[in-house]
Amino acid sequence: MKVNGFLLTSLLGCSIATASSNRPLIHLTPEKGWMNDPNGLFYDRADDVWHAYYQFNPNSTVWAEPISWGHSISKDLSTWEEKGIAIASNDTNSGIYTGSVVIDRNNTSGFFNSSIANEKRIVAIYTYNTPTSETQEVAYSLDGGLTFKKYSGNPVININSTQFRDPKVFWYQPSQTWVMAVAQSQKYSVHFYNSKDLKKWTLVSEFKQHGILGYQYETPNLVQVPIVDSTNSTKTSKWVLFVSVNPGALIGGSFVQYFVGDFDGKQFTPVSNATQILDYGKDYYAFQIVDNTPSDEVIGMAWASNWQYCANVPTSPWRSSFSLARNFTLQYANTNPESEVLQLISTPIYNGLAKNGTSYHLQNQSLETNSSLTFDLSGASNFTTGLFDFELTFSSNSSAFGNADFAALDIYLKGVNTTEYLRLGFEGNAKAVYLDRSHTNVNFVERNPLFSGQVSVDIVPAETLSETVSVYKIQGIVDRNILELYINDGQFVSTNTFFFSDGNYINTIDISTEVNKTFKLIDFQAAQYST
Amino acid sequence: MKVNGFLLTSLLGCSIATASSNRPLIHLTPEKGWMNDPNGLFYDRADDVWHAYYQFNPNSTVWAEPISWGHSISKDLSTWEEKGIAIASNDTNSGIYTGSVVIDRNNTSGFFNSSIANEKRIVAIYTYNTPTSETQEVAYSLDGGLTFKKYSGNPVININSTQFRDPKVFWYQPSQTWVMAVAQSQKYSVHFYNSKDLKKWTLVSEFKQHGILGYQYETPNLVQVPIVDSTNSTKTSKWVLFVSVNPGALIGGSFVQYFVGDFDGKQFTPVSNATQILDYGKDYYAFQIVDNTPSDEVIGMAWASNWQYCANVPTSPWRSSFSLARNFTLQYANTNPESEVLQLISTPIYNGLAKNGTSYHLQNQSLETNSSLTFDLSGASNFTTGLFDFELTFSSNSSAFGNADFAALDIYLKGVNTTEYLRLGFEGNAKAVYLDRSHTNVNFVERNPLFSGQVSVDIVPAETLSETVSVYKIQGIVDRNILELYINDGQFVSTNTFFFSDGNYINTIDISTEVNKTFKLIDFQAAQYST
Repeated sequence: MKVNGFLLTSLLGCSIATASSNRPLIHLTPEKGWMNDPNGLFYDRADDVWHAYYQFNPNSTVWAEPISWGHSISKDLSTWEEKGIAIASNDTNSGIYTGSVVIDRNNTSGFFNSSIANEKRIVAIYTYNTPTSETQEVAYSLDGGLTFKKYSGNPVININSTQFRDPKVFWYQPSQTWVMAVAQSQKYSVHFYNSKDLKKWTLVSEFKQHGILGYQYETPNLVQVPIVDSTNSTKTSKWVLFVSVNPGALIGGSFVQYFVGDFDGKQFTPVSNATQILDYGKDYYAFQIVDNTPSDEVIGMAWASNWQYCANVPTSPWRSSFSLARNFTLQYANTNPESEVLQLISTPIYNGLAKNGTSYHLQNQSLETNSSLTFDLSGASNFTTGLFDFELTFSSNSSAFGNADFAALDIYLKGVNTTEYLRLGFEGNAKAVYLDRSHTNVNFVERNPLFSGQVSVDIVPAETLSETVSVYKIQGIVDRNILELYINDGQFVSTNTFFFSDGNYINTIDISTEVNKTFKLIDFQAAQYST
Repeated sequence: MKVNGFLLTSLLGCSIATASSNRPLIHLTPEKGWMNDPNGLFYDRADDVWHAYYQFNPNSTVWAEPISWGHSISKDLSTWEEKGIAIASNDTNSGIYTGSVVIDRNNTSGFFNSSIANEKRIVAIYTYNTPTSETQEVAYSLDGGLTFKKYSGNPVININSTQFRDPKVFWYQPSQTWVMAVAQSQKYSVHFYNSKDLKKWTLVSEFKQHGILGYQYETPNLVQVPIVDSTNSTKTSKWVLFVSVNPGALIGGSFVQYFVGDFDGKQFTPVSNATQILDYGKDYYAFQIVDNTPSDEVIGMAWASNWQYCANVPTSPWRSSFSLARNFTLQYANTNPESEVLQLISTPIYNGLAKNGTSYHLQNQSLETNSSLTFDLSGASNFTTGLFDFELTFSSNSSAFGNADFAALDIYLKGVNTTEYLRLGFEGNAKAVYLDRSHTNVNFVERNPLFSGQVSVDIVPAETLSETVSVYKIQGIVDRNILELYINDGQFVSTNTFFFSDGNYINTIDISTEVNKTFKLIDFQAAQYST
């Protein structure tokens, strides 16, 4: 249909999933085509539905113009229904780039009349990219987020730049103002704008050249996050500014850094000049906060890939997924014996899954070199879904090994075809959690060295029992071709994709060590699921 | 001998090298035992000799107390003569930890009389570590740096901390003052002290919580660096503060970040809140600036290993080497089309090597899929030294490949036994230089996933010839088990060790591509050397 001179594409309800055997089950993927950044994440409180938009081209499995906003919805943040293109580009060499959605309850924009319920007054703010410019535009939906009408007064912000994108808008209650964070990417600057109506925007501050610069800044997000103590009770809050950097991560390619500070409606002031790392894995980028969550809790999702190799990963007929949704709090957490640093704690959200297979729970099991522990997840039914989690709390006794030892607790996650496996674990001298994703059969790993085989994250104890005995926790969620690791209840997170041969899913967890009297499994749980 | 109640160990002149076939030739290694941080680097202008000290235990190939200062000297920064322990610990559970050396020409300390020439008035400032404290101590040498007498008034700084170390001292001319940078490691703080006599120190400022914090800060170094333009002429200068972080690098383990700013003799003030990365490789830590260089040029060296795996690498009877010495300047360099960032440019120093084998020089050679280029370095003599360099300037034409292609220019560095090789190269979509060090035969690589197989660095063109054609430069120096990569004349550097089977050295460079009409070798040179 044609509205206000713009052709809007409406491809609703196309929810017939294309069969593809290594597609994740609870990570959002497009049925076919290319996906990158999360866009316009919001929760509809009237219908209790989560909406996710994303950078999308259904006709290509690599990034290509025109880029539109794809759209999927979910009741539980685990299973998703694809709703088709929500905002389409006007022509083949332009794109509806990354942006955000807000609920304009009070109709500050004037886009709505009384026929649209307050909770359904959905406004998208995004970047319109052409070969000669990037400007910020606004569109609004009269059908609950399925389709959008572009505002006739677009663009709402134009600074005559080709590198000015990714507006993230939120309502700042104290001054009853809309606030936008948007990146002047190659100037390494986050611009903050204020608006009363989502149409007229005033530049109020800039946050420039902080942290790792890399090639450019993308997808800035600012959000107020509660500070919780160890009993999980909220005392106060700080603001967190997320800045995605690509390329230029020390690990190679894409990553997200964040800064903790204060915000007065106009200016973000960091409490220190520290730059913090949101996720230590290689596949976590373009992070976005969900707007209008049920109880204003802080929830976000990221694109689970890396621009270094996203166009080469062996999936078909789609490429890329989101991360799981995560809940975020701030906590003063030990980073060493002398310091507590205010940092984000990540908790994965995955609900309503049915156990399908054998689940395990054991406690106080010492791990010796001659007794590896093997857990068959698929169980008697012999049906492997490729979707499972495990949660391991273990102690490490450093008096039992020397600093020349490779003091590893190894966790092997083996495919039904055991020639393919992931190896992860903890090494007691380095105090690092490692992941080795190189043991797969696809040519991709051997061919593309940018898909780093080994990644690691340096950690600290969750708890110290004595001078030599410390406790650590590793939670892993595997969903066919993605592993999310949450260490020490989310103090450290590492998200990495991996690619087994089509249809070969992990069905065995094998835990072993090369050093005796060192590791004790205080608590271990694992279960396989289906959706 | 016993001086002032301290036992000084004097093991001079032990320069008989133990034969070990994969020992680097021009990277400093200890003849036997364990080495880590560079210490007390200085140049003796009277005798034209470079002095390097280092954290050292000759009796163990892993880190173990007592730690002393080992000592080696060089005329050319390429070949080194070991001189034995210069400063020894008093007992087996303490250590002479990292520190620095200055030339006290004017005898501000009063340690010297007229019998010691001005240029030989060598003072070491280091951390004395015991199980209960880390304090800063001073010692002076009356024999040109071979042995040191500990000052009777030690410690010169004691803040009752067990995590307070790595004093780096330099002379600040404008206020005729000694300045010390020292880390209160687990508070993420660099303390600056002033002194008139190297004995009495006054805290003048702190630089806290900047950049990546990781677990702790170590080995801070502050130095004034000339800013050069593209014609290499010096206009002005800025100060650079280096802070080593370990563990906690995004790439895993150890890394060095730096901050550019101003210094007034008391306080360092960064010009931005950006944190910059000194070296993108996995093996570059505990960087130290050389004091008293011939023309006050800025030269530094690092420990070429990573605490994640340094105790496991397969060398014997020693472990670890230094990096090559590098010369540093600051330059406003493009990091993207819209920004120039003031950044360090690294130039390797390796002099006086004799060519030994066949050397190559070719120009304007297009690279096609059916015509890989092979260069045998050992040549007619068939003698492989394992020491060579190459310098490649190439153009990449992005119109010749799509974004689904793996558009790689591959450089294989093959051992005489070709089952072992390094693969490195450039990929045109990611615009990244990659290194794959996983193809070696030693069990070490397979066993220890913390020794990341693949590392990469995201780069920008050295020069842009047209909208689609860009020029990049890669220089590589291989010295048996270490590869130093200098990209775009040192704008990006990546230092990584690798471990072939004993005695298997690289003797062939093989350059190939999978995409036609993309890469042209504008200039390629390679040569094998012996010392």
